[in-house]
Amino acid sequence: MGQENGLHIAVVGATGAVGQQIIKTLENRNFPVGKITLLSSARSAGKTALFKGEEVTIQEAKPESFEGVDIALFSAGGSVSKELAPEAVKRGAIVVDNTSAFRMDADVPLVVPEVNESALHEHNGIIANPNCSTIQMVTALEPIRQKYGLKRVIVSTYQAVSGAGAQAVEELYEQTRAIINNEPYEPKILPVRSDKKHYQIAFNAIPQIDKFQENGYTFEEMKMINETKKIMGLPDLQIAATCVRLPVATGHSESVYIEVEKDGLTVQECKEILAGAPGVELQDDIENQIYPMPADCVGKYEVFVGRIRQDLNKANGFHMWIVSDNLLKGAALNTVQIAESLIKLNLIRNK
Amino acid sequence: MGQENGLHIAVVGATGAVGQQIIKTLENRNFPVGKITLLSSARSAGKTALFKGEEVTIQEAKPESFEGVDIALFSAGGSVSKELAPEAVKRGAIVVDNTSAFRMDADVPLVVPEVNESALHEHNGIIANPNCSTIQMVTALEPIRQKYGLKRVIVSTYQAVSGAGAQAVEELYEQTRAIINNEPYEPKILPVRSDKKHYQIAFNAIPQIDKFQENGYTFEEMKMINETKKIMGLPDLQIAATCVRLPVATGHSESVYIEVEKDGLTVQECKEILAGAPGVELQDDIENQIYPMPADCVGKYEVFVGRIRQDLNKANGFHMWIVSDNLLKGAALNTVQIAESLIKLNLIRNK
Repeated sequence: MGQENGLHIAVVGATGAVGQQIIKTLENRNFPVGKITLLSSARSAGKTALFKGEEVTIQEAKPESFEGVDIALFSAGGSVSKELAPEAVKRGAIVVDNTSAFRMDADVPLVVPEVNESALHEHNGIIANPNCSTIQMVTALEPIRQKYGLKRVIVSTYQAVSGAGAQAVEELYEQTRAIINNEPYEPKILPVRSDKKHYQIAFNAIPQIDKFQENGYTFEEMKMINETKKIMGLPDLQIAATCVRLPVATGHSESVYIEVEKDGLTVQECKEILAGAPGVELQDDIENQIYPMPADCVGKYEVFVGRIRQDLNKANGFHMWIVSDNLLKGAALNTVQIAESLIKLNLIRNK
Repeated sequence: MGQENGLHIAVVGATGAVGQQIIKTLENRNFPVGKITLLSSARSAGKTALFKGEEVTIQEAKPESFEGVDIALFSAGGSVSKELAPEAVKRGAIVVDNTSAFRMDADVPLVVPEVNESALHEHNGIIANPNCSTIQMVTALEPIRQKYGLKRVIVSTYQAVSGAGAQAVEELYEQTRAIINNEPYEPKILPVRSDKKHYQIAFNAIPQIDKFQENGYTFEEMKMINETKKIMGLPDLQIAATCVRLPVATGHSESVYIEVEKDGLTVQECKEILAGAPGVELQDDIENQIYPMPADCVGKYEVFVGRIRQDLNKANGFHMWIVSDNLLKGAALNTVQIAESLIKLNLIRNK
């Protein structure tokens, strides 16, 4: 059902922060697009977007929109995915879904190609793209796990506002401007638009991302915990997360402590493993003050790792600092990579 | 040697960010000041400051400046302390030093009054005030340690720019303004003024506070590790730290994981312990989105604790979020509290 010179790709949520990055990433990586269908809510339908220099009119996403589509890349919120992803699958499309709607479903692969590409073989039409903060962490930890095993992870995140959408970024900048000019402002979006209270993000740090669960953890924290176990295939991994929102527009950072299973790992070998790892760039040269920072990662595909240190008490314990563009590797890039893997593994249905 | 109605207090570094907070804190807490001597570098000498409504002329700090002084509160950098603190002691003053110059000296007590006030009995003229990020953490952890012991600490910090001085705060605001207005800027102060490279702090996170040591940790990280052991009297404590600078003017936050020695601690008891602890305010009501944030702590004396959760794998493991005003409990307030404890314990020399 693909076009002669490529696949028919649909992007659902084409006007959103991630949707726009998906369109750009398809262009930049020269993905074999034969035809592109851009879909959105009724509100945004009729707008146009450029794809490879051509104007494409954005249409309202409906069940019929997926007729003839090979791969549908969803990034329009969980409720849209729940409603329309099955419709797309019914019409023969494979769905790569950026929301949390299907991530923990037993029959839906949750994939970071550098980590568990082969899980794609088990797909039943829907493949889930993990949470942004999870993707960058597992990309960095998997090559270490392969050689030394992984027993324990304790992560504290430093997450960017764009993870909460384009309007949250606007809120950050408008609020910053108001504070600097001594003008009043009223927080309306962060930490969670649909939660009861909203707090200042400019010049602040908010220890809440997504809503709270009964166990005291936020959904974001539990996503990191559960998704990491599923992607890495380590149901018994000891893992804890504390997720914090920062006044940074784009680029998630993570302070990560790990304990590996096997003895003998050194900082030097850890650096060598990461320097050669797919999707990872080592930035660790403290003598020259080289370490990853969110301001440097924007627009880049890699997961950057630095500040690698051995724990001073546990020989098998290591600390590191992991940074990546949350809209790219954390979302759009990983989505497109999954589509690339589907082609490579010959897993496009009906081809 | 004190004045009739109080003590003769000297403030060294009276024009700095912490020095000014010390003067304010002496006023606000109604500290028994009979006479105040404000000292600074030659460059700032001649300026005036208000103390209890009266104008006080700031003088250049010299060895003779300490004649007749009862307590000298130093906050003018390590080199000034190294040079002048012994001179002050020679003249009969007790020095409370805010720098790292003497903190790890075996014969210098390193004191957080809520934790180890009795260490003041061992003083030999100089008492050290700990590092800001250490003070707030040990204040929150000590009441838990008293009941359950403390085996392990892993902390990731979210530190404010004012910890690097008033000019760093100016840099944060000027840089923020430049970025928002699309104007050029050149980082000059952060992360460490005297280090080789300087990086953007606005809308960024810098995983370097103070310079690097050979073991890959920064001095700030090693301060947290070594000072915590000394203050809490736990030389074998397993403790690791990752210190990160944020675009926040004032208010340090910390994501802290602890393991206690004894079994049986619950989140509920942890909250009860902290709710009644000296210098601590529990802010932990996730149902109403109540948790500490730096923007809320500015100008307050307390160490705020929230987001208390049990680790999902270790029954004796707990996660929490600790926030405090780094210029107050992290510096000026703790300094003045030490002076208050000296009076209470009758440890003012020559009185």
